[in-house]
Amino acid sequence: MKTDLVLLSGGLDSTTALAQAADIGAAGATISIDYGQRHRRELEAAARVAEYYGLPNLVLDLTSWGNLLGGSSLTDPSVEVPHGHYADPSMSLTVVPNRNATLLMAAAGVAWANDLTRVVTAVHAGDHPVYPDCRPEFIDAARHAMELGTEGRVTLHAPFVTWTKTEIAAEGHRLHAPLGLTWSCYEGGGIHCGKCGTCTERIEAFREAGIPDPTVYVAR
Amino acid sequence: MKTDLVLLSGGLDSTTALAQAADIGAAGATISIDYGQRHRRELEAAARVAEYYGLPNLVLDLTSWGNLLGGSSLTDPSVEVPHGHYADPSMSLTVVPNRNATLLMAAAGVAWANDLTRVVTAVHAGDHPVYPDCRPEFIDAARHAMELGTEGRVTLHAPFVTWTKTEIAAEGHRLHAPLGLTWSCYEGGGIHCGKCGTCTERIEAFREAGIPDPTVYVAR
Repeated sequence: MKTDLVLLSGGLDSTTALAQAADIGAAGATISIDYGQRHRRELEAAARVAEYYGLPNLVLDLTSWGNLLGGSSLTDPSVEVPHGHYADPSMSLTVVPNRNATLLMAAAGVAWANDLTRVVTAVHAGDHPVYPDCRPEFIDAARHAMELGTEGRVTLHAPFVTWTKTEIAAEGHRLHAPLGLTWSCYEGGGIHCGKCGTCTERIEAFREAGIPDPTVYVAR
Repeated sequence: MKTDLVLLSGGLDSTTALAQAADIGAAGATISIDYGQRHRRELEAAARVAEYYGLPNLVLDLTSWGNLLGGSSLTDPSVEVPHGHYADPSMSLTVVPNRNATLLMAAAGVAWANDLTRVVTAVHAGDHPVYPDCRPEFIDAARHAMELGTEGRVTLHAPFVTWTKTEIAAEGHRLHAPLGLTWSCYEGGGIHCGKCGTCTERIEAFREAGIPDPTVYVAR
């Protein structure tokens, strides 16, 4: 039964969450957010992953919201993209204030309007140090608010909230998710830079999971 | 100290919430939502009320979100605006799924980015029958999620959550809020129709509060 609206960034994590939902026949639609990203590569990746699974890819334009925030390296071209791990202090520059909270609640409305009953988010343990609205206690609180706000019509599913990216990569591989279509890089190029924080995490995840990395990185 | 970001629809309730915040010197900015309303009259009213208080009026364009929802008489021109009280079953046609939840979380991000520490919403008791995300238990849950999602930077203030519209009108009058600038009507005219659900509530609120109604309604 199609119950799930999957938040699909086009990255490894959300693609694997979609693979799980598709695996049990629950995937009903995907939703991707345009919040004024510096480049379009991840939205393209999301569209291709949704196409792979034969699902609609709804695009929610939150550019206006991004404009009211400013100051994150993900939306403001004047802020340099940090190189390094998620847990590095420099990664705080990638925080979009209350982003995940906002996306979850917006997605719940879309789920309700489309007769879907579950919003799926791929937040994972690697997000916790820097992004407060990706931590387990937040997810529990957001689920409670979502269920009250929708009179029980829509709930929240966060299957990877305590998983590492390595465990997610292994799960994606197991489920034959199209990981080669996914996009992680925070830089604006046409292929992965291999150096930024998310590329670093991506490379490690494939290596530690012991699975082939289908990604093409810039030659070094 | 300027701590408050006030969600300002341009109506009686949010204008009175702003008057409270201004009265104690806490009002820092206002935020209004363009989610694809059928007409612009309420955004104009919000801009004028903010101007009255000498505050910025940020406008968040959620038209794209409205397009993904559809089906509410507030955003879909094919659905007729119901006439009657909020509590009437017909008013369920005005439900925008999870609207308040989404606006609160988006506003919390904007507050954080602008060094404000409190989101103010004017939800009131009259909203409870039809809008689940305006009820006290939802507000408590949303506050909890907001505080976790912002690491305690931003909290939620809902001063009227158990008040009637009549009590709000009296409070606005007491605080010399510019109630004549506010807009309630769900129809698309240049002056209040005096017949739709929100006009009906507005007329009653002024009458029951025993204060002059500065509103011009269409002659009947």
